[in-house]
Amino acid sequence: MATGSGQFPTMHPVSGFKLGTTSAGIKTPGRNDLVLMEIAPGSTVAGLFTQNAFCAAPVTICKQHLASASPRFFVTNTGNANAGTGEQGIADALQTCETLALAAGVDSNQVMPFSTGVIGEPLPMDRLLGGLPKALANLSEQAWSEAADGILTTDTRPKGASLKYPAGDAQVTITGISKGSGMIKPNMATMLGYVATDAAVDSELLHRALRLANNKSFNRITVDSDTSTNDCIMLVATGASGVVIDESNFEQFVEQLTQVCLELAQAIIRDGEGAGKFVSVIIESAVDSAEALAVAYTIAESPLVKTALAASDPNWGRILAAIGRAGVNALDVNLVQLRLNSVLIAENGARAASYSEEAGQQAMQPEDIEIRVALNRGQATETVWTTDLTYEYVSINAEYRT
Amino acid sequence: MATGSGQFPTMHPVSGFKLGTTSAGIKTPGRNDLVLMEIAPGSTVAGLFTQNAFCAAPVTICKQHLASASPRFFVTNTGNANAGTGEQGIADALQTCETLALAAGVDSNQVMPFSTGVIGEPLPMDRLLGGLPKALANLSEQAWSEAADGILTTDTRPKGASLKYPAGDAQVTITGISKGSGMIKPNMATMLGYVATDAAVDSELLHRALRLANNKSFNRITVDSDTSTNDCIMLVATGASGVVIDESNFEQFVEQLTQVCLELAQAIIRDGEGAGKFVSVIIESAVDSAEALAVAYTIAESPLVKTALAASDPNWGRILAAIGRAGVNALDVNLVQLRLNSVLIAENGARAASYSEEAGQQAMQPEDIEIRVALNRGQATETVWTTDLTYEYVSINAEYRT
Repeated sequence: MATGSGQFPTMHPVSGFKLGTTSAGIKTPGRNDLVLMEIAPGSTVAGLFTQNAFCAAPVTICKQHLASASPRFFVTNTGNANAGTGEQGIADALQTCETLALAAGVDSNQVMPFSTGVIGEPLPMDRLLGGLPKALANLSEQAWSEAADGILTTDTRPKGASLKYPAGDAQVTITGISKGSGMIKPNMATMLGYVATDAAVDSELLHRALRLANNKSFNRITVDSDTSTNDCIMLVATGASGVVIDESNFEQFVEQLTQVCLELAQAIIRDGEGAGKFVSVIIESAVDSAEALAVAYTIAESPLVKTALAASDPNWGRILAAIGRAGVNALDVNLVQLRLNSVLIAENGARAASYSEEAGQQAMQPEDIEIRVALNRGQATETVWTTDLTYEYVSINAEYRT
Repeated sequence: MATGSGQFPTMHPVSGFKLGTTSAGIKTPGRNDLVLMEIAPGSTVAGLFTQNAFCAAPVTICKQHLASASPRFFVTNTGNANAGTGEQGIADALQTCETLALAAGVDSNQVMPFSTGVIGEPLPMDRLLGGLPKALANLSEQAWSEAADGILTTDTRPKGASLKYPAGDAQVTITGISKGSGMIKPNMATMLGYVATDAAVDSELLHRALRLANNKSFNRITVDSDTSTNDCIMLVATGASGVVIDESNFEQFVEQLTQVCLELAQAIIRDGEGAGKFVSVIIESAVDSAEALAVAYTIAESPLVKTALAASDPNWGRILAAIGRAGVNALDVNLVQLRLNSVLIAENGARAASYSEEAGQQAMQPEDIEIRVALNRGQATETVWTTDLTYEYVSINAEYRT
């Protein structure tokens, strides 16, 4: 199950950024599972990584390589997360970098490795290394769609976003792909996301832009509250457009980048495991952002709220109960207002006088649901996106070995 | 679904504590849904209540009445939680107390009201008040089993625990009942629990004993991480045994009380909504209790761990991922050891050398599963009990209006 049309967008190539995809036989035979990305010399690269203490071996290596060199290649395998693999996992990730570096004529710390799939199994190194030459031969600036497909695991759809915006006399392109469907509550970034732009952005600004965009997109989604061991989001700036980002046009760049990241993050929620609803949880008039997020995530992660959503049941008592346990200091429940798709459901600690069960039922029918809570005690607003909890979620996760 | 034999134990009456149960027609016709408990004059009473800010009207009244008078009656209705009912809910709870007080010849603040069932609907006052005389006429010290049945909602079984222990030349009896199956992560107490003893315990000691017992029982269970609006646990000491509890024998009393509370709390987990497994999550060698509990609850509430449990799948990668996101400061993952029902699964950040998939599969087959994690960084141990996440859980909660 999934929500929305799932149409894959037109992907504008980013000059200086190439992608090559192949099948190395790690996943189901015939399915693409190995993706290379080549970054032109002189580009800048920013990355954000999972905060899970049991982070995967490739995450550890990615951080070391990003700190010590200018990345020239990303290599991603699916079907195996290379997580929970101890010292062997580290050795395998390093060998992958070394083998690719040798074939491509770069230093091995200019290669960043990424893995996604089953946790706790050793990487099938023979197959992985054997696939590298084919992927290298496939590299092309046009190949975003194949790469978006090649990085998927339990996802049912490829996820992409792309835009161009005018900057002075020139144009800036931002294009990205992501994957993720379960074990989704990114804590820095989603399972895997790659975004490239042809703007010229120095390293410090690029990191700042990625953190800002990430905090309004990937860091605002949850399918099942489970932060993955492999989350990474990478941003590459090739500079090929000639547009230099500085403090004067930084805000515009972040706005456009956030748009791309938001589309990629929301695509993950639309394709969340077993998803029958796309749910925006909007908390308004909180004291601060942390308070708004605490309430939003308590609602978004409540199994009782999520099963009610699956049944299209306007079960507002469960939403009030979630708000009430979110740890808000001295919450005056009489000030709280709750709306479902703009129907006022509850206020003054009880059902709204204007509410009818029919109106509530009707508000819950659409695939896209907005849960809007006004705390009426401050100025902060935050939005979090999530899915419902369906039989299909249980079925997928009782049968799939993460 | 439920786990364990579910056999209802022999219930030792507590002299000075009577129970009366009837059907007031609030729930399904013919099902008992109104329970009175009468407390002999001179008894002491302690109570712990939900910390949900959207607490139910009866919880608000209970706290006021317990603070202002010596309780003589508990009145409990099921089928309607009287929560999310605003000012009308408060008025209804007060009227219930007044009507019973008049009929029984006590002050209205000596009556404590309890409700459990659907949130957000007004109490059916005519039926509730109409049932009081019948329940009063039924009062008996023998009627624990009927009361255990009368307080249930989505529970599939009554829950009771009872023991006698020698104290000097006399005996102390402790007997209790509880209810709860979904919306279970008590934050002070479970949905509803009532425990009585014939020991004589002054009010301050009684509260202390209840807090201590509660923190090792009701405050250590979670079905779905959703703290209810109506949680209450009450402890009555009638003194009829003649045994006076003081600092000299307090520890023994708390130990026995904890035993009764633990049986009642675990009975709730065994009857958790859709439960196919009874899961003990034991975190050892943590720096402190808070750290152990953070790891325990992150595992116990992870949808991915819970669906793996439902499938009897030894999916240890998901457990490591949960440990890794539990927010433990500077966790050294190489020190962590994970056991499933005493089979060593993972250590040194990877699968244990001695582990075989067959041993893992076998460890996951029993209905009772122990997930034991050694952090190897301190002295604290905590245990939390939970269930798996099954189709039945989704089914129950997509169809039942809490």
